[in-house]
Amino acid sequence: MGALRLPSLTSLFNSSSSAAALPRRHLHLPFRRLYTANCSAQSSTAEKEISSTSELEGPPKLKPQQDKDRVITPRSQDFNAWYLDIIANAELADYGPVRGTMVIRPYGYAIWEAIQDYLNAKFKETGHSNMYFPQFIPYSFIEKEASHVEGFSPELALVTIGGGKELEEKLVVRPTSETIVNHMFTQWIHSYRDLPLMINQWANVTRWEMRTKPFVRTLEFLWQEGHTAHATPEEAEMEALQMIDVYTKFAYEQAAIPVIAGRKSKVETFAGASKTYTIEAMMGDRKALQAGTSHNLGQNFSRAFGTQFTDENGQREHVWQTSWAISTRFIGGIIMTHGDDTGLMLPPKLAPVQVIIIPIWKKADERTGVLNATTSVKEILEAAGIKVKIDDSEQRTPGWKFNFWEMKGVPLRIEIGPRDVSSGSVVVSRRDIPGKQGKVFGISTESSSFVPYVKDKLDEIQSSLLGVATSFRDSNIMDVCSYAELKEAIAQGKWARGPWSASDNDELKVKEETGATIRCFPFEQPQGSKKCLMTGNPADEVAIFAKSY
Amino acid sequence: MGALRLPSLTSLFNSSSSAAALPRRHLHLPFRRLYTANCSAQSSTAEKEISSTSELEGPPKLKPQQDKDRVITPRSQDFNAWYLDIIANAELADYGPVRGTMVIRPYGYAIWEAIQDYLNAKFKETGHSNMYFPQFIPYSFIEKEASHVEGFSPELALVTIGGGKELEEKLVVRPTSETIVNHMFTQWIHSYRDLPLMINQWANVTRWEMRTKPFVRTLEFLWQEGHTAHATPEEAEMEALQMIDVYTKFAYEQAAIPVIAGRKSKVETFAGASKTYTIEAMMGDRKALQAGTSHNLGQNFSRAFGTQFTDENGQREHVWQTSWAISTRFIGGIIMTHGDDTGLMLPPKLAPVQVIIIPIWKKADERTGVLNATTSVKEILEAAGIKVKIDDSEQRTPGWKFNFWEMKGVPLRIEIGPRDVSSGSVVVSRRDIPGKQGKVFGISTESSSFVPYVKDKLDEIQSSLLGVATSFRDSNIMDVCSYAELKEAIAQGKWARGPWSASDNDELKVKEETGATIRCFPFEQPQGSKKCLMTGNPADEVAIFAKSY
Repeated sequence: MGALRLPSLTSLFNSSSSAAALPRRHLHLPFRRLYTANCSAQSSTAEKEISSTSELEGPPKLKPQQDKDRVITPRSQDFNAWYLDIIANAELADYGPVRGTMVIRPYGYAIWEAIQDYLNAKFKETGHSNMYFPQFIPYSFIEKEASHVEGFSPELALVTIGGGKELEEKLVVRPTSETIVNHMFTQWIHSYRDLPLMINQWANVTRWEMRTKPFVRTLEFLWQEGHTAHATPEEAEMEALQMIDVYTKFAYEQAAIPVIAGRKSKVETFAGASKTYTIEAMMGDRKALQAGTSHNLGQNFSRAFGTQFTDENGQREHVWQTSWAISTRFIGGIIMTHGDDTGLMLPPKLAPVQVIIIPIWKKADERTGVLNATTSVKEILEAAGIKVKIDDSEQRTPGWKFNFWEMKGVPLRIEIGPRDVSSGSVVVSRRDIPGKQGKVFGISTESSSFVPYVKDKLDEIQSSLLGVATSFRDSNIMDVCSYAELKEAIAQGKWARGPWSASDNDELKVKEETGATIRCFPFEQPQGSKKCLMTGNPADEVAIFAKSY
Repeated sequence: MGALRLPSLTSLFNSSSSAAALPRRHLHLPFRRLYTANCSAQSSTAEKEISSTSELEGPPKLKPQQDKDRVITPRSQDFNAWYLDIIANAELADYGPVRGTMVIRPYGYAIWEAIQDYLNAKFKETGHSNMYFPQFIPYSFIEKEASHVEGFSPELALVTIGGGKELEEKLVVRPTSETIVNHMFTQWIHSYRDLPLMINQWANVTRWEMRTKPFVRTLEFLWQEGHTAHATPEEAEMEALQMIDVYTKFAYEQAAIPVIAGRKSKVETFAGASKTYTIEAMMGDRKALQAGTSHNLGQNFSRAFGTQFTDENGQREHVWQTSWAISTRFIGGIIMTHGDDTGLMLPPKLAPVQVIIIPIWKKADERTGVLNATTSVKEILEAAGIKVKIDDSEQRTPGWKFNFWEMKGVPLRIEIGPRDVSSGSVVVSRRDIPGKQGKVFGISTESSSFVPYVKDKLDEIQSSLLGVATSFRDSNIMDVCSYAELKEAIAQGKWARGPWSASDNDELKVKEETGATIRCFPFEQPQGSKKCLMTGNPADEVAIFAKSY
């Protein structure tokens, strides 16, 4: 599977391979704005300073004197540092003890669970069953498909010792499962009646990457890998296209990422595939992220493994296959598409917490009323299926909490103070619209109007994120007619879209000279006759070139 | 985690570690009884023979001439062969290419998904978050906790080559994650405010077992492992007990397995734990299966890894920890608890298919009416949240289908023939009551009565399975007062329950002389004063001895 196959151009994340304690990234929160009394919620407690044990490095702490100590690097200043700061501060992931490995922390894993929930249902709806293949693959399997071994052998992890003994045959820790899947398919597929065979597994995979980056490219990552076998090439092609379509809809409708779906060039096709379809996403730094791939494997693996069936005429034929994958890399794509200087910004449909409720009170006698109101609001929303959380910790000020949950990317905040309690209303703030503009006062908590109001707001945020990302994407794609224009576009950090029918060598020349690769030949193509930007020869399609992760 | 730690007394399942094709177990179905016309459903088509391409070894095929070729070995004749036959015939799992590994096929994996769905919800209700730790652990980590390394080092798989290079430090493919969890906990836990820290992960683990058996003990298996850290020993103890209680309820209420919950002896305690709690299940051959464990780790790992926190008085203390696991081994427990000579028998709450609908018709003009009725029945049940499937394949006879789905352990079968269509009714058959006794005719499909009827039947089956297993268990536990009686009980293949306060050496002597180990000191203890069956000294508790998987 090609999801994480392109070499990284970005910096290493260094973590020791020894057991020694690692230098930790700062975990203090930026203090971007003080809570101000611009709402009906009480504000004076918001400025109350909470002392914390200073030698401890705990969950994010905030002190007014650290006001200028902005520790989420601004995105515009250093995109990579900003990205790593968000991952540390929002507690999405941490470095594992082995170089290039990653611990996915509960908040990051909850995003993965939301991705799984959606895709798992779609896979089942489209006729696939989950199962599980062993992760240890005999080394000889990898060698069976020529381009597959060429693509994967440099990045294999090998088990050579088991139960205290040197093994006769080295075992590969799966980098992907086509080989073992075909080994098993040969035992399950006999007649056309056994086809199509359509399965999926959720699993960990290992690739010995040299340059790693949390989520985007790690030594071990989590993914799903679908594998199917069909009786005809047409069915396999339809399946490969169906699954890239599932991924595209997921990206648009759930992740609010306006990916461009298309076909990979021959140079960029998965090691062992006949065709690779991809969804390409534009990150905040305008680099492309390959966010999911679907491969038409043709008969490459079935010929290598002898995966045959008897057709309706009694002839033995090799099956036609596909494979397709989305991985934890996608979480990196969400961060880098929607995040801003304030921190993470999560699309409501994938947010582990969609609504954070913050109670605000000043006097002890206000406390019970406010807390009761927050509980009742929580129950109303929960009953409506909304993922809601109360932050009623008394160790943090409301201002600290506002910053913290904005940094965590929670789409909607509800503030409840004593005056709100008396009026039976709340204050609602949108994560995606900063300050007063995103804040609405006096929203009645009367259930019949309140639930639809909150749902509408979440929908608005969901589509607003997609809209903003789409505008950003479209304003950063340049249509080019010549190699000079292509170079200019890439030099400006943009994506270049232009007609292409040149050779693989020309494609490699572009990569060497500009750092950009063909991301895909998009499915959506302009009408009319075209001339190749490189050769001037007739071209059937435009290609998109970009620098990428 | 100790879920799979006890040495196996059972036979190997041999699978080559090379890429060569494996000899396959026969996959033909037993033909235990011919479909007979004892119901309103049409029967003549049931005897229709469907030709199949004879050189193919496909999904289970049935030919009347194979009538005497009973290929599910009778349970009473050879329990182990019966077990393997069920796994092959019901398509639960297959052998992986590497010795001792297993491919979990869709039907087996769907049982695992049902287990996951239930437990995952319970873990979240009890305050745990899912996350993910890398599977590669520096070898030095394993050496840090003395008894842990002693317990696990003989069965480690080691990665020594990565990215084409010999690694400086060997990497362990996780056999369990206490060490890497503690390494990370030291970075996340600082103050008492960070406690309790309660997490869980769903993952694959690897143990280089010499004697393997599908589901029960495999080189790689799937499990969940919970890990928690607490400020006090009391909290850790409560957590360990809470989780064994979650497992116990799961076993009784979902899997219909009347496990006995209790505490392990010191000899049988997990490598690194202070106390191990266990649920022990009696299999159909009366061997015990350790089906889930919960460990109070005390401060063993926190001292080895320096996992400390600052308490409310500013003192640095080591945290108190637990870990707990249930694995794909549990599926083996379900098979061996409920299965019979006919095949698998699944508890309705974990069955991937709860109701199988079989349309039966003879004349072409009956077909549409019957199929419409099956579809409408399916829709009614599906809308009520029941997992239902129609087997409308025209290549198999109803008789073949009856056998096939009974062998697959589906709790309830609905038959619909032309006469049922005219009367607006169906025939309902229970998997757990063979033949006419389990069959009811003329059940009206009028939705308001039909749905409750089917739900009641499923509930009845669920509790009946538990009842049968409980009687079987209770009739096979002997209360013993002396070592002679213990030996007699074990020689009869039963479990022995008797007072025990003897030494570890005495316990090992029992194991050597009888093959039985202390499965647990059950939580439920008889009242009154007791004398140790071995020494005659006063004993506080009775222990249960049994041979085990």
